[in-house]
Amino acid sequence: MASRRPLLRLLAQSRIQSRLSNSACRRTISSFSASSKASQHPLARYLGVTALSLLVATPLFYKMAVDEPYMLDAPTLAERDQQTKRAEAITNASPMRLRMEKFIKEQQVEIVRALEAIDGTKFRVDEWQRKEGGGGITCVLQEGKVFEKAGAGISAVYGTLPKAAILKMRANHKNLVNGANEIPESIEFFAAGLSLICHPRNPMAPTIHLNYRYFETANPDGSSGAWWFGGGSDLTPNYLFEEDAILFHKSLKDTCDAHNKEFYPKFKKWCDEYFYNKHRRESRGIGGIFFDDLDETTADKESLFAFIQESLKSFVPTYTTIMNKRKDMPFTEKEKEWQQIRRGRYVEFNLVHDRGTAFGLNTPGPRVESILMSMPLTATWKYMYEPEPGSREEKLEKVLREPKEWV
Amino acid sequence: MASRRPLLRLLAQSRIQSRLSNSACRRTISSFSASSKASQHPLARYLGVTALSLLVATPLFYKMAVDEPYMLDAPTLAERDQQTKRAEAITNASPMRLRMEKFIKEQQVEIVRALEAIDGTKFRVDEWQRKEGGGGITCVLQEGKVFEKAGAGISAVYGTLPKAAILKMRANHKNLVNGANEIPESIEFFAAGLSLICHPRNPMAPTIHLNYRYFETANPDGSSGAWWFGGGSDLTPNYLFEEDAILFHKSLKDTCDAHNKEFYPKFKKWCDEYFYNKHRRESRGIGGIFFDDLDETTADKESLFAFIQESLKSFVPTYTTIMNKRKDMPFTEKEKEWQQIRRGRYVEFNLVHDRGTAFGLNTPGPRVESILMSMPLTATWKYMYEPEPGSREEKLEKVLREPKEWV
Repeated sequence: MASRRPLLRLLAQSRIQSRLSNSACRRTISSFSASSKASQHPLARYLGVTALSLLVATPLFYKMAVDEPYMLDAPTLAERDQQTKRAEAITNASPMRLRMEKFIKEQQVEIVRALEAIDGTKFRVDEWQRKEGGGGITCVLQEGKVFEKAGAGISAVYGTLPKAAILKMRANHKNLVNGANEIPESIEFFAAGLSLICHPRNPMAPTIHLNYRYFETANPDGSSGAWWFGGGSDLTPNYLFEEDAILFHKSLKDTCDAHNKEFYPKFKKWCDEYFYNKHRRESRGIGGIFFDDLDETTADKESLFAFIQESLKSFVPTYTTIMNKRKDMPFTEKEKEWQQIRRGRYVEFNLVHDRGTAFGLNTPGPRVESILMSMPLTATWKYMYEPEPGSREEKLEKVLREPKEWV
Repeated sequence: MASRRPLLRLLAQSRIQSRLSNSACRRTISSFSASSKASQHPLARYLGVTALSLLVATPLFYKMAVDEPYMLDAPTLAERDQQTKRAEAITNASPMRLRMEKFIKEQQVEIVRALEAIDGTKFRVDEWQRKEGGGGITCVLQEGKVFEKAGAGISAVYGTLPKAAILKMRANHKNLVNGANEIPESIEFFAAGLSLICHPRNPMAPTIHLNYRYFETANPDGSSGAWWFGGGSDLTPNYLFEEDAILFHKSLKDTCDAHNKEFYPKFKKWCDEYFYNKHRRESRGIGGIFFDDLDETTADKESLFAFIQESLKSFVPTYTTIMNKRKDMPFTEKEKEWQQIRRGRYVEFNLVHDRGTAFGLNTPGPRVESILMSMPLTATWKYMYEPEPGSREEKLEKVLREPKEWV
């Protein structure tokens, strides 16, 4: 079921009451960014500067630690990670938190480059931090040649889970308190994820969405406690091209099958159940995969990280193939109108049913523009709009009402 | 507070698990409607036919009562009301249920006529019933000359409140179980309301919304149990015209003041609190009035009905005055774009925060097209759109962030 652990999944979607991670470091980055060479890609430049700042920021951190007495307390997970990032490069031996963060940053660059290549328009890059702690990078391309709107956002936050949340989580993650007799008052956590959405102009080209995320708690001794991965990707066409649906699902199935033959059927069903516009009695799109809580009861951390990496990496080749076929297809005004109606349904799903969006918007101090980058540029609601019998629009509706097996 | 009794307010908004009201009567109406004269206004024709059908349907009802043994049980509230409506005209001596239903039907006709006069386009009229029971009439004008979309809907449903709901309601309505020692397993209820929304084309013309409703429960002996009125109206301009804001609020204040000097300040505040897009930290519009649970602790039923009637009747003259000033004003592409962005915020409020919409969509078997007639025809989401400093757009945003006293 999609709703096994709503709180945790939402926490894992990473806009949360969280504590400061790296504001000193960010400030260094910002001041560097301003003077960086304009010829570099802005996002690549940002990441290049990050690596540099990890080195130059070390003396600053040392000074703070000496000057400010509160730094003498046991360091938080965030502080320990900062220290690690400053002291050494991220390798396969680094904590998964840092490997996941590095991976999604790299993937964000890859994805942004690929979408810019399709569109010919640059993304706007916004680095942000919440007053409450944590932050991310939101990249948006708006009113491009091919995309009405495309957004790729990453976030990585540290925070503290209160006792009530721990009690709820324990039911599904036995190792959350590591066999301790007493439930602690709070546990530190880390959550990082990458979210992507593309709304193309051409009604023949499908909207795509994906999200991959990692969640981890810390034991009191500083070691990793409970951890799990979540994610998935789903396709939302306005007009059905079976070859696209098959390509999309086959690509996901191949990645799944390489890890576990049970993944694809299970995650495909989960996706159909999650992305369901209940009040319309139809799916948001033609599905894909959706999963959460992949922990040691499913496979070891290394294997699951490999699965997450391959799933995310499969986006660029698959979507590029589909877009190259669809982005320049001829279309009519009526087909554009249908796309806009489908966009309205997309808005309905995201604002009425999507637990991630609801959780994000209801969190204190949300970055609303990052959460709602998933909104289409435009949408339409026509009262009692009904596709003509036998039309391509009706054909799509039928598929949305009865999810198909594509591979 | 706006959230004093969410369940009840939502029930009062009247899309509810409810029991059959008058399907035999409706079928008679439908068959008559098909042969009615096309020269009549469709809605007026519908109501004229209703009156006629109340007479012709009596023999049918008698026959059912004789033939079908289950009709020998104590009649339901719905059945008793059907009988009353068939036997006699609705007068001031009739139960409030029937007076309210008659009143909102008449007002729907008035409002539809007034908006058609402004636009020059006819409304589409849909009569509907839920499989689960209850029904209404939804009138929508779409892509008109003046309105992108305007909707006026009424509904009147009968149903049964389960014990859990009764227990919740009792906190605020002492007379719900009329001093009985034991809480009954269920109580019959009636809920009726009129909802209206207008989204004009011209960005200088404001969107308006109103909703007035009545809720009543039945005692086991068939007499009226608890009852209350709810409602209100609010204005959502894209560009601020202070004279419109003052006219709108003054009209509501005058109606309030004629009944109780405390009404306007209390209901104005309640409106500002209810129509608040929390995640945007701004109001949906410039407010108006909002109230609920007006029962015998506020005033007697007759006085409150008079207040509701006058409030609803004040819509046509006030909005007509505003529309006549604004509907033909010149505007730029940029101003149209701003309107579309404001429409996006309207969608966000309705889908994320409005408890009536959420309740309606989550009810089994909802008539989604009636619930979502409140959606604008089109809306836009632009990432990081910010009005220019000192612009009229920024001026509106300031007012939305700090509600003003207009009269």
